[in-house]
Amino acid sequence: MKQSEQKKIRLKTSKEINDKLVELGKKVIKQLKDYENPSVNIPLRSLSNVYFDEKSRMLHLGNKTSDRSYLNLSQSKSFMQTMLVASKLREVIKDGSHFGLRQLFYMCKGGIPGTKENTFDDQSESDIIIEDIEGLLSRLREEIGIFAISKGKMSGDLKIVDSGDKIDCGKLGSSGYGIPSIVEKGIIDFDKTSVDFVLVVEKEQTWNRLNQDRFWKRKNCLIITGGGQPDRGTRRFLHRLNSELDLPVYVFTDMDIWGYYIYSVYKQGSINLAHFSENAAVPDAKFIGVKMSDVEKFNIPKSHWIPMKKIDYKRVREISEYEWFKTDKAWQKEFKKLSDFKHVVEQDVLVAKGLDFMSKEYLPFKFDTKDWIE
Amino acid sequence: MKQSEQKKIRLKTSKEINDKLVELGKKVIKQLKDYENPSVNIPLRSLSNVYFDEKSRMLHLGNKTSDRSYLNLSQSKSFMQTMLVASKLREVIKDGSHFGLRQLFYMCKGGIPGTKENTFDDQSESDIIIEDIEGLLSRLREEIGIFAISKGKMSGDLKIVDSGDKIDCGKLGSSGYGIPSIVEKGIIDFDKTSVDFVLVVEKEQTWNRLNQDRFWKRKNCLIITGGGQPDRGTRRFLHRLNSELDLPVYVFTDMDIWGYYIYSVYKQGSINLAHFSENAAVPDAKFIGVKMSDVEKFNIPKSHWIPMKKIDYKRVREISEYEWFKTDKAWQKEFKKLSDFKHVVEQDVLVAKGLDFMSKEYLPFKFDTKDWIE
Repeated sequence: MKQSEQKKIRLKTSKEINDKLVELGKKVIKQLKDYENPSVNIPLRSLSNVYFDEKSRMLHLGNKTSDRSYLNLSQSKSFMQTMLVASKLREVIKDGSHFGLRQLFYMCKGGIPGTKENTFDDQSESDIIIEDIEGLLSRLREEIGIFAISKGKMSGDLKIVDSGDKIDCGKLGSSGYGIPSIVEKGIIDFDKTSVDFVLVVEKEQTWNRLNQDRFWKRKNCLIITGGGQPDRGTRRFLHRLNSELDLPVYVFTDMDIWGYYIYSVYKQGSINLAHFSENAAVPDAKFIGVKMSDVEKFNIPKSHWIPMKKIDYKRVREISEYEWFKTDKAWQKEFKKLSDFKHVVEQDVLVAKGLDFMSKEYLPFKFDTKDWIE
Repeated sequence: MKQSEQKKIRLKTSKEINDKLVELGKKVIKQLKDYENPSVNIPLRSLSNVYFDEKSRMLHLGNKTSDRSYLNLSQSKSFMQTMLVASKLREVIKDGSHFGLRQLFYMCKGGIPGTKENTFDDQSESDIIIEDIEGLLSRLREEIGIFAISKGKMSGDLKIVDSGDKIDCGKLGSSGYGIPSIVEKGIIDFDKTSVDFVLVVEKEQTWNRLNQDRFWKRKNCLIITGGGQPDRGTRRFLHRLNSELDLPVYVFTDMDIWGYYIYSVYKQGSINLAHFSENAAVPDAKFIGVKMSDVEKFNIPKSHWIPMKKIDYKRVREISEYEWFKTDKAWQKEFKKLSDFKHVVEQDVLVAKGLDFMSKEYLPFKFDTKDWIE
């Protein structure tokens, strides 16, 4: 994509968000002029308002909202905070630069004249308000220019334009491309690519191993990691690779309930960021392993199993009850087997089977025999 | 550096380490043949054996060692573990590939025939043994090819050869160059550069902000972050920039005791990795801020100060007693002022002063007036 086109996209986004923020402000001013109690209507993000949408096969927010009004003792402070953050976000979007969540916290933190109160005491408060505003505007904080810590990495034959720089992700040595927190169109764009698919790897250490083995070259794919539970940037980046470049996605995690849930987050979104799913989920992602049948198939010795803890069993019970897993026979079987097996098998174990076992035997076998869960 | 030269360096390192491992093995075999109690002599890494060397101005290990022998009930297991890890490390070095600490743990984990014992139950055990072996061989695990999680980032006009790929760190968009865990000569090498210095930034969010402002371009420098308390890769990378390219280093942290200690780790090394200082410390690094005088100079409002906690005061007392700080008048003053001030001022606060205040006013002023602590 040309720089001029990228700029056009950025300007369009800024204008749309600016208009929405102005509209929000005008609404509150009108309420004041009409002697009404100023209030805004915020989509509820609690579990009770999260549902699994069968059609799109991802988590969505329902229609429940809550009023946040100024003349209400329990809401007055958060109403003030909402207005304050919204006004700072407008400065940010007009400036066009990007800022961190911590930096936004300080932009909004201040004393309230005539009191000993602060507008914000802790970043956790401003983080919540920003998500509220995402709901209010139906736009993402990334589109506004607010970033968090990033931790994703990617390598493979894909050329990216990032902030005007053309980057060849097949020529980044042992480092790979560090997936930024903000990966919006107009800032980061992809060239066409001839790779066949994306392999998502749970852990950075496994990604490193595969990157050093040039697995992406051997299998003509991209390899990505979100470093455990993935950050928003990595999820959004993967979503764009899948939806814009039409690349199938395979997820490779530990054989434990936490790894399975990481797969679920990549696939259908996360409960606490359900409003983000549409921009981040990959509903047709497949699970390539490690799964129960691998233990026997690849003869993984008992000394490499790690005993499950109480909290693991509890989490298996919880997750197997989630709507999108509850009716899925393959996964119900997998959960049952895991609980009976009483042990965890990490992806790192495969390295111990032989120094290049993972990239030369295990993964090729899985792909060749289509040994995955849809 | 040419690829053939890089290969030569790698081969030389491998050979040296392989020879040392073989020597270690032969020594133990000789002890067995001579009916002696097999034992190895490991440098002590506890605080009692760490000292600040006035001449090199960094932390070093002293001469104390401890015997680890097979025929000793309390040492037998760790002796076995040491031999086991050493033998796996020899496989690693012969293979020439890199492996993660977790992967090495699994390579060494196994049942002991005829018992219910495992060689290793937890990664923390193998991590310690690897550091022991670093001491035994006087070589780094990175040289052997063992990596950990990485978190450093860098940008600026520097060309790097990383695993055969030539990377221009001035053309990596918002992402920057992700500093790998292993940054040894022969794997990662630098071209000549015309930049003037390196600015080390404590936090990734601040680095992001400066990177977006192209601060490195404006001040003709490199900007690096280790993401809080830096990982070994970032420290070693910085050390090489300083020692091989002769670049002065300035460290920019929060004004709190944790930030000051991060500076200290970059400068003279860390207590728990004293054997690593020689390869990682930058004794002439300067501290550019945030410091006490900045609060008044830049009129940082009280609402942006964060009250110090009990643990902060305790840490100030501890750190001000460290040898390398104890005789340093400038730092003793700074510690005293901090305790009296009773508050912390983070580097993010500077962004709240104005969207580009940090990169256009604060930092340029600090450099122009040489307002740093040596």
